[in-house]
Amino acid sequence: MNLIHSDKIINAIKELSQYDLLKGLCHEQQESLPMPSSVALEEIITLCRAVIFPGYFGNASITKHNLSYHIGVNVERLHHLLSAQIQAGLYFSRQQGYAPAPCINPEPLTSQKVAEIKEKGQALSADFIASLPAIREQLATDVEATFLGDPAACSFEEVIYCYPGLRAISNYRIAHRLLELGVPMIPRMITEMAHSETGIDIHPGATIGDYFAIDHGTGVVIGATAVIGKHVKLYQGVTLGARSFPLDETGHPIKGIPRHPILEDNVIIYSNATILGRITIGKGATIGGNIWVTEDVAPESRILQSKARK
Amino acid sequence: MNLIHSDKIINAIKELSQYDLLKGLCHEQQESLPMPSSVALEEIITLCRAVIFPGYFGNASITKHNLSYHIGVNVERLHHLLSAQIQAGLYFSRQQGYAPAPCINPEPLTSQKVAEIKEKGQALSADFIASLPAIREQLATDVEATFLGDPAACSFEEVIYCYPGLRAISNYRIAHRLLELGVPMIPRMITEMAHSETGIDIHPGATIGDYFAIDHGTGVVIGATAVIGKHVKLYQGVTLGARSFPLDETGHPIKGIPRHPILEDNVIIYSNATILGRITIGKGATIGGNIWVTEDVAPESRILQSKARK
Amino acid sequence: MNLIHSDKIINAIKELSQYDLLKGLCHEQQESLPMPSSVALEEIITLCRAVIFPGYFGNASITKHNLSYHIGVNVERLHHLLSAQIQAGLYFSRQQGYAPAPCINPEPLTSQKVAEIKEKGQALSADFIASLPAIREQLATDVEATFLGDPAACSFEEVIYCYPGLRAISNYRIAHRLLELGVPMIPRMITEMAHSETGIDIHPGATIGDYFAIDHGTGVVIGATAVIGKHVKLYQGVTLGARSFPLDETGHPIKGIPRHPILEDNVIIYSNATILGRITIGKGATIGGNIWVTEDVAPESRILQSKARK
Amino acid sequence: MNLIHSDKIINAIKELSQYDLLKGLCHEQQESLPMPSSVALEEIITLCRAVIFPGYFGNASITKHNLSYHIGVNVERLHHLLSAQIQAGLYFSRQQGYAPAPCINPEPLTSQKVAEIKEKGQALSADFIASLPAIREQLATDVEATFLGDPAACSFEEVIYCYPGLRAISNYRIAHRLLELGVPMIPRMITEMAHSETGIDIHPGATIGDYFAIDHGTGVVIGATAVIGKHVKLYQGVTLGARSFPLDETGHPIKGIPRHPILEDNVIIYSNATILGRITIGKGATIGGNIWVTEDVAPESRILQSKARK
Amino acid sequence: MNLIHSDKIINAIKELSQYDLLKGLCHEQQESLPMPSSVALEEIITLCRAVIFPGYFGNASITKHNLSYHIGVNVERLHHLLSAQIQAGLYFSRQQGYAPAPCINPEPLTSQKVAEIKEKGQALSADFIASLPAIREQLATDVEATFLGDPAACSFEEVIYCYPGLRAISNYRIAHRLLELGVPMIPRMITEMAHSETGIDIHPGATIGDYFAIDHGTGVVIGATAVIGKHVKLYQGVTLGARSFPLDETGHPIKGIPRHPILEDNVIIYSNATILGRITIGKGATIGGNIWVTEDVAPESRILQSKARK
Amino acid sequence: MNLIHSDKIINAIKELSQYDLLKGLCHEQQESLPMPSSVALEEIITLCRAVIFPGYFGNASITKHNLSYHIGVNVERLHHLLSAQIQAGLYFSRQQGYAPAPCINPEPLTSQKVAEIKEKGQALSADFIASLPAIREQLATDVEATFLGDPAACSFEEVIYCYPGLRAISNYRIAHRLLELGVPMIPRMITEMAHSETGIDIHPGATIGDYFAIDHGTGVVIGATAVIGKHVKLYQGVTLGARSFPLDETGHPIKGIPRHPILEDNVIIYSNATILGRITIGKGATIGGNIWVTEDVAPESRILQSKARK
Repeated sequence: MNLIHSDKIINAIKELSQYDLLKGLCHEQQESLPMPSSVALEEIITLCRAVIFPGYFGNASITKHNLSYHIGVNVERLHHLLSAQIQAGLYFSRQQGYAPAPCINPEPLTSQKVAEIKEKGQALSADFIASLPAIREQLATDVEATFLGDPAACSFEEVIYCYPGLRAISNYRIAHRLLELGVPMIPRMITEMAHSETGIDIHPGATIGDYFAIDHGTGVVIGATAVIGKHVKLYQGVTLGARSFPLDETGHPIKGIPRHPILEDNVIIYSNATILGRITIGKGATIGGNIWVTEDVAPESRILQSKARK
Repeated sequence: MNLIHSDKIINAIKELSQYDLLKGLCHEQQESLPMPSSVALEEIITLCRAVIFPGYFGNASITKHNLSYHIGVNVERLHHLLSAQIQAGLYFSRQQGYAPAPCINPEPLTSQKVAEIKEKGQALSADFIASLPAIREQLATDVEATFLGDPAACSFEEVIYCYPGLRAISNYRIAHRLLELGVPMIPRMITEMAHSETGIDIHPGATIGDYFAIDHGTGVVIGATAVIGKHVKLYQGVTLGARSFPLDETGHPIKGIPRHPILEDNVIIYSNATILGRITIGKGATIGGNIWVTEDVAPESRILQSKARK
Repeated sequence: MNLIHSDKIINAIKELSQYDLLKGLCHEQQESLPMPSSVALEEIITLCRAVIFPGYFGNASITKHNLSYHIGVNVERLHHLLSAQIQAGLYFSRQQGYAPAPCINPEPLTSQKVAEIKEKGQALSADFIASLPAIREQLATDVEATFLGDPAACSFEEVIYCYPGLRAISNYRIAHRLLELGVPMIPRMITEMAHSETGIDIHPGATIGDYFAIDHGTGVVIGATAVIGKHVKLYQGVTLGARSFPLDETGHPIKGIPRHPILEDNVIIYSNATILGRITIGKGATIGGNIWVTEDVAPESRILQSKARK
Repeated sequence: MNLIHSDKIINAIKELSQYDLLKGLCHEQQESLPMPSSVALEEIITLCRAVIFPGYFGNASITKHNLSYHIGVNVERLHHLLSAQIQAGLYFSRQQGYAPAPCINPEPLTSQKVAEIKEKGQALSADFIASLPAIREQLATDVEATFLGDPAACSFEEVIYCYPGLRAISNYRIAHRLLELGVPMIPRMITEMAHSETGIDIHPGATIGDYFAIDHGTGVVIGATAVIGKHVKLYQGVTLGARSFPLDETGHPIKGIPRHPILEDNVIIYSNATILGRITIGKGATIGGNIWVTEDVAPESRILQSKARK
Repeated sequence: MNLIHSDKIINAIKELSQYDLLKGLCHEQQESLPMPSSVALEEIITLCRAVIFPGYFGNASITKHNLSYHIGVNVERLHHLLSAQIQAGLYFSRQQGYAPAPCINPEPLTSQKVAEIKEKGQALSADFIASLPAIREQLATDVEATFLGDPAACSFEEVIYCYPGLRAISNYRIAHRLLELGVPMIPRMITEMAHSETGIDIHPGATIGDYFAIDHGTGVVIGATAVIGKHVKLYQGVTLGARSFPLDETGHPIKGIPRHPILEDNVIIYSNATILGRITIGKGATIGGNIWVTEDVAPESRILQSKARK
Repeated sequence: MNLIHSDKIINAIKELSQYDLLKGLCHEQQESLPMPSSVALEEIITLCRAVIFPGYFGNASITKHNLSYHIGVNVERLHHLLSAQIQAGLYFSRQQGYAPAPCINPEPLTSQKVAEIKEKGQALSADFIASLPAIREQLATDVEATFLGDPAACSFEEVIYCYPGLRAISNYRIAHRLLELGVPMIPRMITEMAHSETGIDIHPGATIGDYFAIDHGTGVVIGATAVIGKHVKLYQGVTLGARSFPLDETGHPIKGIPRHPILEDNVIIYSNATILGRITIGKGATIGGNIWVTEDVAPESRILQSKARK
C-alpha cells in the first residue's frame, strides 16, 4: 500500500480510537451477558410461527403423530433463545434516561445482579410461552379477517404463508405481549424486523383488538398509544400518529402521554390517510384515502378528500 | 431450570399440541411433495435475472465464448427448481374455497395424482422457460423507459443493477407469465418477494404494457385486475386499488370481478395518489400527487389536489 | 425428462444465447477487476457502523483496553473491501452516456489503465477513511435529534441500535461522502440498500445539515439536488421531488440541473406530504401531512390540506 | 484473457465433452431420484448418535421431560433422510457387474419401478430404525470395553465424546445393520466416512461381537468376511486382510468367498500386526505387534516378531 | 407414509425414550453451562496458529503497522472462546470414576459452584494465554528441525503452512500446556482433532523436548506417559505405547503409572516401529522400521528387523 | 473480567506483537496477491473431479444434451480459481533457500513483477487444463485396476464414488501435472489434502504409471523421487521412503538426489512393508507385509518376514 494512503489510515484509526470522545456513541457490554441479536430474534420469530401455525414454517412435515414432538422441541429452543434475549434487553436498557449514557458504565453489575437478571429473563420467557395459546387464538381471528377482506385471497393457507399484513400483525402480537410483561428493547426490535420486511410499522405499545386486517400495508404507521377495536381494516400508507407532544421543563418530550388515535370497532381507513392526535374515529366510520384528519369522526360517518382541481 | 417455569412450559406445550383445535391453522404436506420455499424462489429469480441480463447477476464473467455454457447451466437449474416449486404450488392450493381447510387433508393424494402433479409441474416449467426470450424483450423496453425518465440515471447498467423499480417489474413480469400458465400460489410469492425488497406491490394478475417505469416506488400498489397501457410512469406511493367489492349471498367477496383502474398509454401519476375502482385514466393524462381519484379522468387532462389552507 | 419439454428448453437456451441480440442487456466485466457486490457493500456498511458506534455492531465486547485493536482491524478490513468496490464502480461506470452500451466493450482496458484504476480505488478509499471521524461527529447530532424528537425513544442506545431513520441517514452520510470524492455507482448502491431495508430513499447527491431526523420513514424520498438545513425533521411518506425536468434537443433529460426543494433550518414536514420542484420551504415552517406543495412556503408559516368533505 | 490461453481452454472443453468417449466414467442419474450424498449421510450419522447417546451430540440440553421430544424429532428426520439415501443406493447400484457400465443407462426406470424403489427405501429405513434399540445396547458394551481397556480414559463420557475407536465402531454397527437389510452402496459410504475421520477401515460386511475395542486405531483394516468374537481388542495398524483371492475364468475376482481371519473371543492384537487369510486366531490368544501371520494361532497362545538384529 | 412403517417408527421412538434405561449413555448438561464443542475448539486452534505464526492463518495481510491490532483482536477472541470451553471441560468431567455415571446428575450445581467454575475457566484461560510466547518459541525449534530433516522441504513457509507433522505438534504443545494447568477433557479433544486430520495421535500428557520432528506421520502414536528428549525424529507409523498395565483389585486399570517409553536426545525411529513399555532408548540410537522393541536400547546403537525369508 | 487476568492478557499481547522477534515465523503477503487457500483448492479438486467423472460430483444431472454446458462452466470456474492459486504459489515461494526468511520481505514486488506473476499464473492454468483429457484417460486405467483388484468392489461407480485409494491417486495425478509445469507449493497442498482425508501420502514429485491401485491405503507413503511402473498395487501402510540423505557442507540436506525406490511393472506390496532407499523391486515381485527392505529384490521373487517366535 502506498505510504500516503497508509498514513491517512493510521491517523484515522488513532482519531477514531479516542475513548474519551465517545460519549453516548459507544456501548460496553459486560462480557458474560448476551447482546440483543437480530439473528437470534429472527430465529425466535420463526419458532413462534412454527408453533402457532404448525406445518407452514420450519422443515417439518406435521402429522397427528408427530405434532407434539415438534411443538416440544420448538418451544424448548424458543425458551432457550428468548431467555437470553430478554436478559440482553434487561441489561441493555439499564441506563435509560435523557442524559446520554457515558460510554463506560460506571458501576459494573455485581454477580448477584447478573444472577437476578438471568432468573428474571427465564421467568419472563416462561410467562411469554404460557401466553402462546392465547396469541394463537387471536391470530386465528386476524387470518379470518384478512381472508374475508380480500377478494384476491384464495385460501387461509395463502394468507398465512404469503400475506405481509399478517406477518406484521404476528410480530406485533408477540412483541405486545413481551412489552406487557415488562421486557425492554426486544419488543421494539421485533416490530422493527416486520417494519423492514413489510413496510408496516406497528409500535408494540399499541392496543389492537381481534379480527384486525392490513391490506398491502407498505407505509402503515401505528403509534405507541393507539387503541384499535375489533374488525378494523387499514390500507397501505395509513398513519395513526401523534400531532404534537408536550415537552417538560428541560425541553424533553414527556413520555407515556396518550397521543395517538382511538379507532372503534368496524372502522375502515383507506390508503395514505393520516390520522393524528388523541382523537376518536367512531364505530363503523369509513375514512377515505389521502386525507389529513386531526379531529374526531362520528360513528358510521364517511369522510373524503375535498375535490381535485383541474 | 426453575420448576415453576418448567411447569408453565410443559403446560403450554400440551395446549399447543392439541391437534383437534388446529382447524385452519395447521398445514399438512404430503411427505413426498415439496413445500413452496422462499429460498428456492429467490434462487429462481436470481437465475431468471442471470439469464435475462447476462453478466450482471451471478458470479460469471460473460464472454462471447462462454455465454451459451452459462445460459445452458442456468436454464437447466432453473427448470429443476421451478418444476418443484410449481408442483408445490399445485399441491398447496388444492383445498381452495371459502370454508377454512381442516388441518388434516381428508383424502391423501393417490400416487397417480402425485405423478400427474409432477408431470404438470415439469410441463409448466418448460412452457415458462419457452417464454423467457419474450420476457427479456419486454423488460428491455422497461429498462429504456426507466433510463429516459430519470435524469439521475447514468447508464442502462445502473438501471439494471440498482433500480428497485426495475427489480419489481422483473418479478412482476415473471410472476404474471406463471399466472397466465395457471400456476397457483407461486406467482404471488414472487411478487411479495419484490414487495418486501422494494415496497412495490404489483399483483401478478395485473396487465401491464411495454415501457413501464416506476420511480422510487415505495408504497406503490397495483391491484389484480388493473390494466396499464404503454409508456406509463408511476411515482412512489401510487395506489391503483379497488373501491369496494360485492359480496355473495354468504357474505364472502366475489372473486374475479374487474375492480381496479385502467390506465391508457402515456399516463403519469405523481407520488401518493390513490386511484380507486374500475375507472379509466385517459391517454396522456397527468395525475398530481396526494389526490384521491374515484372517477374517470379524460385523456390529456391534468388534475391536482385542491389548494392547501394556511 | 419428457422429450417435448426437453426440446422447448433446448430451443429457449439457443434463443437466449444469441450474443448479437443482447445490446444493452449484457454486461461484460474484464476478468481481473471485481464486480460491484452487494455482499461486500453490506460488510462495508457493517464495518463503518462498528467503527462509528463501537460496541453496537460486530461481535466484540469493547473496553478501554481493546478499543484500538478493534478499530484497527475493522478499519483495515474496510480499506481492503472498499478499495475493491470503488475500483468496481470506476470500471462499471466507464461507458456512461445516453446511447445504450453495446454488450461487448470495444476497447478492453490496457493493463496500465487497470493499474491506474487500482491506484485510484486505494486513494479514494483512504480519503474516505480519513473522513470517518467527521462523519461520526455529524451522526452524533442526528442521534441526539432523533432521541429528542420521539417520546417513544428510551435511550440513545435504542436509537442507535433499532431506529430505521438513523440507519438510512448513516448510509446516506457514508454514500454522500463517497459521491463527493467522485466515486461512481457505489454511493447509489449504498443508499439503495438502506432504501430496501427501511423504505427511505435518500439520493446520495442530496445535501443535508446536522441534527437531521426521520421518524418511521417508510416512503420518504429525497431527490439528488435537494438541500436540507439543520434541525429538520421528516415523517414517513414525505417526498422532496422534482416537478418536471427539461429535455435536451435529443429528448433526453438534462442532468445536473437543481430540481428538488430547499428546506431551511428547523422545518418539520408531516407524513405523506409531497414537496416538488426547486422551491424553498422557509426557516421554521411546518408542512401538514398529505399535501401537495409546488410553491415556496414562507418562514415560520404552517400549511395544511384543505378540509375534508363528508 | 490472453487469446492463446483461451484457445487451449476451448479445445479442452471440446475434448472433455465428447460424450461417446465417456464409457464407465460418467454417471447419469435419473432426474427424480436423489444422489447418494455424503452431506446427507453425515447428518444421518449425527442423528443416529444423538438418538443412541442422548445429550452428547446435537445442541439439545436433555432432561427427563424433553427426552421423548428430541428422540421423536430426531428419529423422524432420520427416517426422512435415510429413506432418500437408501433409494439413492438402490438406484445407483442397479448396473452392477464386471462389465463397465456404459455412461447412458439404456433403459430408463419406469415410473412404476421408481415407485417401487421409493417404497422399498421407506420400508428399509423403518426396519433400520426398529433396530436402533438393539444397536444402542451393543454399543453400550463397546463403550464399557473401551473404558476398561484404557488406563488413560477418565470416564464413559470421555469415551463417548472423544474416542475415535468408538466412533468407527458406531459407524460400522450402523452400516452393518443396513447391509444385513440389503441396502447397497450406503453402508460402504458410512464406513468410509469413519475411515477418513479416524483412519480405521472396517468393512460393513464384517461380523463383530460385543465388547469390541480399538485403541488409537489409525491404520486398522478389517475385511468384508472377517469374523470377530466377544471381548476382542485391536491396536492401531492391525490388518485383518485377505491373502489372495481366486479369479473366475474371465480373470475377475470371485466375490463372496470367505477370505479374511476369524478371531475368537478375548483375542488381543498389538499394533501393526498383519493377519491374512481365512485362518483362526484361537480364543484368548495374544498377537504381538509388527508381525505377519498367515497361519492359525492356537487358543491362549502368544506370538511375537523374531528378535531384532543389531 | 405407510402405516406399518409408521408403527415401527413410533415403537422405536418409545423404546429409545425410556429414560431409566439410559445409564451411562446419556449426558445431561446443566442449561447455563456450555458444552465442549469441536466447532469452538477448531476456532481456538486457528486463533492460536494465527497468533503464533502471524500472516499464515486467518485472512489478514500482516504488516509492521497492523501486527498489534491483529494479535490483540485474536487473543481477545481466543480468551472469550477458551474460557467457555475450559468451563465446559470442568463441568463435563465432574463425575469421573469407574462406576458408569448415571444419566441424571443427582446433585445439580449450585449457582455458587457455577460461579466458581466460570471464574476458574477465565483464570486458566488467562494463564494459558500468558504461556503463548513460550509455546511460540518452542514451536520455532520444531519448525527448524522439520525443515532441516526433510530434503523435500523448500522453505520454513512450506513447513508452517503444509506439514501435517508440525500441525500435530502444534496441537500437542497447546493441549499439553492446558493439561499442565489442570484443564480436563479439552486437551484430549484438541489432540484428537489433530489425530483425525493427520493420523498422528499424541497424548497431551506426553513430555516432548525442543526440535521435535515427525515426518509424514500417519499412524504415529505417543502414549500419555512417554518422555521424549530434544532433537528426536519419528517417521510414520511409529508407536510409543504401553506393553501392559496393572489392574487394581476390582479389575480396573490403575491410572497414572509410567508405562510408555523414554526417548533420549537425538533418537531416530523409522516407520512402523513399535516401542512398548517403560523402556529407555538411549541417546543417539537409531531404530529401524517395522520392528517390535520391548527392551532398553543402548545409546548410539542401531537395531533392525531380522532378515526377510524368500 | 478480573483485573489480574486482564493484565496477563495485555502483557501477552505485547510480547506476541514484538515484530522484530518474529524471524521466520511471520508471513507478509503483498496485499494485491492472493494467499494459497485450502478452501479454493478444495473447490479446484471438486471441479477437476466433476470434469473428469461427469455426473458423480457436483449437483448436476448429466445428459447427452447438457454435458458440454456443465463441462464449459466447470472448466471456466476451474481456470478462474486455479490461475489465482498458482499466482499465490509463485509469490509464496519466492524466498526459498535454507536461511529462514526474515518476516519482512526486503524488496516488495514491483507492479511489473506482479503483472508477470499474473500472466504466468494464467498461462500455467491453461496448460494444466489442456492436460485434463490425458489425466482422465490415465485415471480410467486406475479405476479399472482398483475394480479388478478388489473382490469387494461392486461396480466402477462404487470405485469412483467411494474408494479412498482412487481419491488419493486423483489428487496425485493432478498435483504431479502441476509440478511438472513448474507450479510451486500448490501441488504439495493438493496431495496433503488427500493425505488428510485418506491417510495416503503421495509426494507430487513421484512418477507413477498406468493401472495403479492402492487398497485401503491408510499410512501409505510414497516419496518424492519414487518411480512406479504399470499395474502396481500397494496395500495400507506401505512406505516407499528414503534411507538417509547426504548433507552439504553446511549440514543441510542436499535436495533433488534420487533417494526413493523404483518399482517395476506388476509389483505387489502387502500391508505395512517399508521399502527404503534407491533400490529396485523387480518386475512382478511380491513383497510380504511388515517387512523392512533396503536392498534390491529380483524380478518375480517373493519375500516375507522371518518366522514369528512363540
